[in-house]
Amino acid sequence: MTDREVGGGTWELPACVAAAPVRRRGRVLREALRDAVRSGRLAPGTRLPSTRELAAELGVSRGLVTEAYEQLTAEGYLRSARGAGTWVGDAVRAAAPGRARDLAPRSPGVRVDFRPGVPDLSLFPRAAWAAAYRAALGGLAHRRLGYPDPRGLPELRTALAALLTRRRGVVADPERLVVCSGVAQALTLVGSVLRERGERIVGVEDPGSPEHGTLFAAAGLRAVGLPLDPEGLAPGPLAASGVRAVVTTPAHQFPCGIGYSAARRAGLLGWARSVDGWVVEDDYDGDFRYDREPVGALQGLDPERVVYTGSVSKSLAPGLRLGWLLLPESLAGAVVERKRTMDLGHPVLDQAVLADFVARGGYDRHLRRCRSAYRERRDALVAALAAALPGTEVSGIAAGLHVIARVPARYGPAAVFAERAGAAGVEVRTLADFGTGGEPDGDGVSLVLGYAHLTPGEITRGVEALARAVAPAGGAGRRGAGR
Amino acid sequence: MTDREVGGGTWELPACVAAAPVRRRGRVLREALRDAVRSGRLAPGTRLPSTRELAAELGVSRGLVTEAYEQLTAEGYLRSARGAGTWVGDAVRAAAPGRARDLAPRSPGVRVDFRPGVPDLSLFPRAAWAAAYRAALGGLAHRRLGYPDPRGLPELRTALAALLTRRRGVVADPERLVVCSGVAQALTLVGSVLRERGERIVGVEDPGSPEHGTLFAAAGLRAVGLPLDPEGLAPGPLAASGVRAVVTTPAHQFPCGIGYSAARRAGLLGWARSVDGWVVEDDYDGDFRYDREPVGALQGLDPERVVYTGSVSKSLAPGLRLGWLLLPESLAGAVVERKRTMDLGHPVLDQAVLADFVARGGYDRHLRRCRSAYRERRDALVAALAAALPGTEVSGIAAGLHVIARVPARYGPAAVFAERAGAAGVEVRTLADFGTGGEPDGDGVSLVLGYAHLTPGEITRGVEALARAVAPAGGAGRRGAGR
Repeated sequence: MTDREVGGGTWELPACVAAAPVRRRGRVLREALRDAVRSGRLAPGTRLPSTRELAAELGVSRGLVTEAYEQLTAEGYLRSARGAGTWVGDAVRAAAPGRARDLAPRSPGVRVDFRPGVPDLSLFPRAAWAAAYRAALGGLAHRRLGYPDPRGLPELRTALAALLTRRRGVVADPERLVVCSGVAQALTLVGSVLRERGERIVGVEDPGSPEHGTLFAAAGLRAVGLPLDPEGLAPGPLAASGVRAVVTTPAHQFPCGIGYSAARRAGLLGWARSVDGWVVEDDYDGDFRYDREPVGALQGLDPERVVYTGSVSKSLAPGLRLGWLLLPESLAGAVVERKRTMDLGHPVLDQAVLADFVARGGYDRHLRRCRSAYRERRDALVAALAAALPGTEVSGIAAGLHVIARVPARYGPAAVFAERAGAAGVEVRTLADFGTGGEPDGDGVSLVLGYAHLTPGEITRGVEALARAVAPAGGAGRRGAGR
Repeated sequence: MTDREVGGGTWELPACVAAAPVRRRGRVLREALRDAVRSGRLAPGTRLPSTRELAAELGVSRGLVTEAYEQLTAEGYLRSARGAGTWVGDAVRAAAPGRARDLAPRSPGVRVDFRPGVPDLSLFPRAAWAAAYRAALGGLAHRRLGYPDPRGLPELRTALAALLTRRRGVVADPERLVVCSGVAQALTLVGSVLRERGERIVGVEDPGSPEHGTLFAAAGLRAVGLPLDPEGLAPGPLAASGVRAVVTTPAHQFPCGIGYSAARRAGLLGWARSVDGWVVEDDYDGDFRYDREPVGALQGLDPERVVYTGSVSKSLAPGLRLGWLLLPESLAGAVVERKRTMDLGHPVLDQAVLADFVARGGYDRHLRRCRSAYRERRDALVAALAAALPGTEVSGIAAGLHVIARVPARYGPAAVFAERAGAAGVEVRTLADFGTGGEPDGDGVSLVLGYAHLTPGEITRGVEALARAVAPAGGAGRRGAGR
């Protein structure tokens, strides 16, 4: 590399140009010139050598230099006047230095992580999914690779409608089903439409999923936390809140783990009719119940008052970003149009794969396999808690991917419980993390323990490590107990 | 099937229950009961037969009926009092009758469709894509099937950054690249963030892509159409418009087909700096240029003023819904957060497939193949127009998937041209369809002809059919010519 005066500036000549294979030289020269201009090595106003000079110096053809100059002039890096030469233009500005961002999922390093929300990703049916992919790609006509129907592929909507009718007891008209990229997008879509209709607030369960409020906030709606009682959303505060739409998890409340009572289900629908509003039913893990058949979805009782949404995030994998909405007639058209403007519809190959997987029974087989594994893990967790943290009460229905475990007060104050556990390599969340209510003083701590992603052995080791970390001073002491 | 009085109501007894295989009888009975309640055949308040009676009548076990009653009571369809019987609840409401909607892509039926915007989907590299899918699925660790990084998979961002730097001359930091589901979502994301920052209007090219305005409207921004001159967006109206952000297609203006001049490129960036604003560069078909190397993207000149967006919709298939954004530091964080709340990030398997396809050179090979096919089709179109519609002028650079063809006035008034063509089975769009300017009276008609999705034979037949449909009365008459 040699330095060369160029009209007052200094730049490193791209010696790599001549070294490059002949067919790549043009590109290499262009990139070297762009870089020199961007970096400021060639300052604005600098006159470049003539094409003849530069070609001679680099040992390349003059035509190649001429082409590079013309290209960079067209792009705005250089300017030239016919016969008068070529200068560095003044349009270029450099990029600001990058700033490190940490938006990626948290790094691991914890030995046992009981945080809820993720299924066992090692159960993902790779072979069956790959087979469904081959079938889907092979069976899709060329034209279907074009812009999709914003509601979703007809064959997927038909397959999902049949699946949800059978498994969840919904009323599922494929014409009212919209394929979307998970419950998050479903809530964003519904939130946007409610805001267009003039709503400014929406009810969410408290405690509940923190994402519900975040997603509605992004759609311009303020989330109003509404308290629960042992049967579900408490009717009084709901009626007094002034909201006309509320998001609920009736099959298995997150995080408390209760199933809504029959009376509360009817009451919720009565409320929706009385305010001419909507219940959004987030059926986030409605497929997993271990003691009996899952209770059918609320939507089946009143399809014109309930927006039903679910996804494969807990049943297959969150990374697939595939979910669905069943919509009342009053919202369907607007939601579909919003889906269209949001992304023009869901990727077609993914939809075709899920359609094949569902239609051929692969989805049911996979759910059976997961259900069996998760039941075993839940049993392991309950047993480990009883053995290592005696006095702990597990509440909520036998369903889903997490339990609520109330640990007696003698194991330490709620405020430091999770911290002590974390220091010992066991990540836990408390019920207080998911709501505004907090824990009653001195009454122990309610843990929200996800188990589906852990093996029975990991679960047992995790609970034992937890017990060691929070063991009362003096062994099985009774400090704080009985208060 | 028999009818049976049930506490005053009449319902069809599910004879199918006993006929079903034993392990399915419970489900069949539950579905039959739900259907009877929903349809009103079992009216609210109707008392159901006792479990003993119904079991005897159906010839099934009493436990099965008890379970069904309990399940439907939990779901809210029935209500019961211990020992006192079971009644139909009053929570149920039926779905409103479905209304047929036509949001699906228009049905075919046209013989030759010159409407622009779609690549040749039969060129989609199915075998190479399937191979990339196998490699991606096989190589992805389990944990990566979890919730994705909202910016996109790191390996895809790295592969795209290298690709776009090399092919489009951009400054591409993978940390500032966001994977999204196409240019539509990119504009929705940027529009949402601009609105949060207080913008209420945004400039769009006129004529231009009608979608630009639609997408911004959904984000709460009003689109202001800005006129073009032969070099690009006219500077005066842009400066006078009051917008601080403008969407442009500088590599190949849609639909006019011009490439922005070097002076206009620099002027546009100067404008953006002067208003502390942004240029959104929709590089919708920047890969296809037939006469020379594609002009590098505007973004490379000033990465802090230009939001660059592109997708695989014109290069691979719109149905993949895969695109990208390169963002200035000033917008990156907010756009990533908006992407997160919009759908929690893009499906990971699709991303892994594209990363593999790009990194192994499959994308470059595919673009070379398409470029060769499309150049041949463009040549066929230009030749057919010269032969069948003499006097027609093809304008715009030799690039992309469409041409602008100005047909002389003797072939009929602009107002009825497209209609006559359509009646003859040839779908065409005119320039007036994409802007507010309309056509100068009596000065012929400018057609926007997409050719990439048609074979050379189809193109020739289409142009010949078009010529027959619009032939001046009296053969090669001169009616209207010369005005």
